Amino acid sequence: MMEKIAPSAVVLLSGGQDSTTCLYWAKKRFDRLYALTFDYGQRHRIELDAAHTIARMAGVAEHRILRMSELEELGGSALLSDAPIQETSGRGNLPNTFVPGRNLLFLTLAAAWAYQLECHDLVGGMCQTDYSGYPDCRRATIDALEEAIRLGMEWEIRIHTPLMFLTKAQSVKLAAEVGAMDALAYSHTCYEGRFPPCGICPACRLRAKGFEEAGVEDPLLIRAREMAI
Amino acid sequence: MMEKIAPSAVVLLSGGQDSTTCLYWAKKRFDRLYALTFDYGQRHRIELDAAHTIARMAGVAEHRILRMSELEELGGSALLSDAPIQETSGRGNLPNTFVPGRNLLFLTLAAAWAYQLECHDLVGGMCQTDYSGYPDCRRATIDALEEAIRLGMEWEIRIHTPLMFLTKAQSVKLAAEVGAMDALAYSHTCYEGRFPPCGICPACRLRAKGFEEAGVEDPLLIRAREMAI
Repeated sequence: MMEKIAPSAVVLLSGGQDSTTCLYWAKKRFDRLYALTFDYGQRHRIELDAAHTIARMAGVAEHRILRMSELEELGGSALLSDAPIQETSGRGNLPNTFVPGRNLLFLTLAAAWAYQLECHDLVGGMCQTDYSGYPDCRRATIDALEEAIRLGMEWEIRIHTPLMFLTKAQSVKLAAEVGAMDALAYSHTCYEGRFPPCGICPACRLRAKGFEEAGVEDPLLIRAREMAI
Repeated sequence: MMEKIAPSAVVLLSGGQDSTTCLYWAKKRFDRLYALTFDYGQRHRIELDAAHTIARMAGVAEHRILRMSELEELGGSALLSDAPIQETSGRGNLPNTFVPGRNLLFLTLAAAWAYQLECHDLVGGMCQTDYSGYPDCRRATIDALEEAIRLGMEWEIRIHTPLMFLTKAQSVKLAAEVGAMDALAYSHTCYEGRFPPCGICPACRLRAKGFEEAGVEDPLLIRAREMAI
């Protein structure tokens, strides 16, 4: 029996591998979960269906999908447009899939919801080890934001990032430990928005590498294979 | 001739007295201004018209009105509902007009736009002296957020808050100095969303007090009187 951290938490749930793992990590540590998904005009809207399915599988108390139009209106990222995805064509060698400020906005909105729910804990799948060049995934950024939220809302907020210092292989092992493997069969990762996944985009390759190094077969690929039969 | 700080800046423009003063403050210090207004379901939509008029009067390079539906969806403030406005019915004696995280979101989105524009300066009318109980108006909050944005976007951002330590009377004097008085006749302040202003809500009273202490007649009231004739 895991010791509970607090009665409830708000979990950022994109429908991807990392946030799904975090949702199940949180399920062991909080009695009541609130899942928050952002619909921000991303190319891979298939993620939203994945988030919906996974939230239901995990039995969350409430799942909100928040429509966020601002990032689209302000423009600029390949994830929100038809531009080809490249790993280093963004500013200062950032990948051109970088949406500036995305995680800052997501976490601040999650905190605003937590404030309404009288809840103090947020959980997010940010990871600095394989952070793919995204500076808003680093713990130093999260720490600074935590402080800004505490001061700006006068509300104690703890942002848990259980994957922050794990490799992708360790993250797969954690998923197995917390019972997330069934749900991972419904998670979505492919930047091209495909099921079965394209297998060649940076996101697919990173996911495959993690499962390979962990010596575990990806339940998403098992599901794809079974559906093809 | 005022020394310029940088070629361009993004100014948060609500259409109220403080942001109008800041826009003209910025006009003296930057060659090119980008004004950003948020339409977040506030009760006083008359502010949006005020912002539009004032941005045009100031000759900004571009004025964007961003629709932000998230705060409405997450709910909870008297400014977004039909609840009567009270000064201390919110959490921990915060006024019930407090929208948690509002300024954090506004500034982060302004920074995301600045990033696209390759601009490093933001200007906002936050004021700690008369901060009406809003913790997201304090300089300590702004400093923490500045750090979170720098780290999260890998982009140098300076958030200028020229009114931060001014009294409302000093702010009126600054408005006169930077040539904002004509535009202030079109600014909007009343929480009740009225023109002529109601004169009795906390926002109207705070505005009246500032002009009175500065010994200046409010150009908005002059305009209201002239229109009534």
